[in-house]
Amino acid sequence: MKVYQELSKEELLDKKAELEKAYEDAKGKGLKLDMSRGKPATSQLDMEMDFMDILNSRSDMKTEGGVDVRNYGLPDGTPEAKKLLGDMMGVKPENVVVYGNASLTIMYDTVSRSMTHGVLGSTPWCKLDQVKFLCPAPGYDRHFSITQHFGIDMVTVPMTPAGPDMDLVEKLVAEDASIKGIWCVPKYSNPQGYTYSDETVKRMAALKPAAADFRIFWDNAYAVHHLYDSADRQDQLLEILSECEKAGNPDMVYEFCSTSKVTFAGSGISAIASSEANLKEVRKSLTIQTIGYDKVNQLRHVRYFKDINGIKEHMKKHAALMRPKFEAVLKVLDEELTGLGIGTWTRPNGGYFISFDSMEGCAKAIVAKCKEAGVTLTGAGASYPYGVDPRDSNIRIAPSYPTQEEMAMATDLFVLCVKLASVEKLLESK
Amino acid sequence: MKVYQELSKEELLDKKAELEKAYEDAKGKGLKLDMSRGKPATSQLDMEMDFMDILNSRSDMKTEGGVDVRNYGLPDGTPEAKKLLGDMMGVKPENVVVYGNASLTIMYDTVSRSMTHGVLGSTPWCKLDQVKFLCPAPGYDRHFSITQHFGIDMVTVPMTPAGPDMDLVEKLVAEDASIKGIWCVPKYSNPQGYTYSDETVKRMAALKPAAADFRIFWDNAYAVHHLYDSADRQDQLLEILSECEKAGNPDMVYEFCSTSKVTFAGSGISAIASSEANLKEVRKSLTIQTIGYDKVNQLRHVRYFKDINGIKEHMKKHAALMRPKFEAVLKVLDEELTGLGIGTWTRPNGGYFISFDSMEGCAKAIVAKCKEAGVTLTGAGASYPYGVDPRDSNIRIAPSYPTQEEMAMATDLFVLCVKLASVEKLLESK
Repeated sequence: MKVYQELSKEELLDKKAELEKAYEDAKGKGLKLDMSRGKPATSQLDMEMDFMDILNSRSDMKTEGGVDVRNYGLPDGTPEAKKLLGDMMGVKPENVVVYGNASLTIMYDTVSRSMTHGVLGSTPWCKLDQVKFLCPAPGYDRHFSITQHFGIDMVTVPMTPAGPDMDLVEKLVAEDASIKGIWCVPKYSNPQGYTYSDETVKRMAALKPAAADFRIFWDNAYAVHHLYDSADRQDQLLEILSECEKAGNPDMVYEFCSTSKVTFAGSGISAIASSEANLKEVRKSLTIQTIGYDKVNQLRHVRYFKDINGIKEHMKKHAALMRPKFEAVLKVLDEELTGLGIGTWTRPNGGYFISFDSMEGCAKAIVAKCKEAGVTLTGAGASYPYGVDPRDSNIRIAPSYPTQEEMAMATDLFVLCVKLASVEKLLESK
Repeated sequence: MKVYQELSKEELLDKKAELEKAYEDAKGKGLKLDMSRGKPATSQLDMEMDFMDILNSRSDMKTEGGVDVRNYGLPDGTPEAKKLLGDMMGVKPENVVVYGNASLTIMYDTVSRSMTHGVLGSTPWCKLDQVKFLCPAPGYDRHFSITQHFGIDMVTVPMTPAGPDMDLVEKLVAEDASIKGIWCVPKYSNPQGYTYSDETVKRMAALKPAAADFRIFWDNAYAVHHLYDSADRQDQLLEILSECEKAGNPDMVYEFCSTSKVTFAGSGISAIASSEANLKEVRKSLTIQTIGYDKVNQLRHVRYFKDINGIKEHMKKHAALMRPKFEAVLKVLDEELTGLGIGTWTRPNGGYFISFDSMEGCAKAIVAKCKEAGVTLTGAGASYPYGVDPRDSNIRIAPSYPTQEEMAMATDLFVLCVKLASVEKLLESK
């Protein structure tokens, strides 16, 4: 087998004709599959329907401390929910404030509050001429949408398997006081499935930002989302709050988590974890902003899981459903693309995504070809700030929603489109 | 019986001695009652525990249109939830966007978005030198907290039994382009229980504000919270969206509602109703801000009530519990204070509060005396912007949480404190 780059024009044309025929056949199959977003599969949701039986009309509706969750009170969350979500992040309950149904809203809210009220007494960001965020990329499109929405300038930082390029991060935050934040998905990153190394976490915690109101937005979305049960295939992430404290930066990080992909998507509970000073500010705002979040759902979660071990056991069932899908994708990619020089891909131990990098300038074409034949992928470029991938090469594959069989079919089509787009690209310069 | 103002110094001193003795006796009773906030009573929450049985592991978790509520999707709410909450407000489902567990958060959010992004293309309010809101007062303290939190200047407008003083409102909004909003609780107002007259609603809808981004914040919190079943004792509120449209001001109002005081406090569903143009802006922001709100809880509410008639029937049960408490308060006030010239009070047909006005300069003293003897009232002044009642006379009574018997006891103490504080006040000038 030759790498595509070594093929002659003749060989490329032959291959093109052959691929085009296969592609026409594939289009004829009438596929209709969605790999665009990290949606849980229906089978996964069905599996956890016992969650709906946890509370009923005979349930005791009080917290352990005797607070009635059906009434107002405990605006920053029940003690038990703080403990449960704190344990998911490896932090103490007193460092946790529980919010509503999803963590994205907390992140939006945290940026929004910084815009209008500043951070621990700093100038509100909306009063500044320029505010910038560092955006390790490829990254999570919805993070970038938040900063874009608020007119915050986004500075791309390259990602590596150990996390963001820390030499660059250290240099930029030290030099530029307009840099107020960095977006991170530190464990099983979106879209690569990378987990930040201990060294990366320690360097992140020890940053010396020029801006006193610089904050790390640590979106620990996949804290418990392992794909494998054996310890050696479970990534471990260093706990950043205590690292920041050790490094003399106790207030530098906001951590976020939720159960949106643990129980039902969009019907979970979520939390922010941070220092006492930061949470004091959060609570001050919350008192104005809400009469409290849904404590009945907090109780439902606490009763269902009991503790962090309950969550871990539960997530093994998710893993059993997710693993074959990931493996189905990887099998096809391995068999069909290894050695061709037209793509590389990640092999995550957890999370919701596989990241694929095509030859430069092919991602949009691949996504368009897949779409035309009935397979929807996340838009090419979405994993970069402003939706622009400078190399037009990154594609996010989300195996969670379709079945294993559908994933295999979808990936068959995907590799066909990768090959075809690559051949077309190579022919351009022949 | 003489009005207190006509009593001689001697008579006042006698009365004072007598009241002080009664007050000391009352303190000895060791009361511990909370009339400070509009919290539902435990008996009310117990009564609706069948709500917890509506969904279980055997439930069909799809909307009528076939969308799985356990997964992502429908970020602006399920069609059925839009219909249900729309019917609560008397507006079409297409004018509704469903949010999370409480409407206060939507109001905060709406002000916050206007601060950072303006309104339909206007300058973001945070970029303006001055932003003002009209605050009909006495009013809802949490409204005033939101505007204060964002540094918005609050201009007090007197309330009348027919709503805010509309002559003043019309004059102010026409003259001053820095006035960007007005807070309204148009039905069973907090704290008086007043309902805006048809004329008030029509004049409100026909305002000619100097600011194109002026908005009416129409908090229809007590839309279905009647205290009486008979139609002649149920206040009717004109539907404002269509009035605004008729008056050529289709975009001038945001209406808010929730089920926080229909099902469980803090675990309800909530909505904003507005024009297509306004909702387009809301949705644009929501797409960035959230992956959608809790649709499982939307489904739970829709299945429980079925339709607006289900809500109406349900609220009759609330009324049966609330009415005796209101009547217990009114009975004591009527019997003990009528004709004394030291207080006036409202007789609402619905809502959660009774508003009491003492002689000028007595409210703080009354609240303090009640507190000392074990009855907590909302802080005096809370119903005014910045927590300052210029006459120090308004007190909000919240009869919902204690039992009927407790309410009677608490009101006995209250009238005692009113008398004592009034006598002390009158003696100051003798």
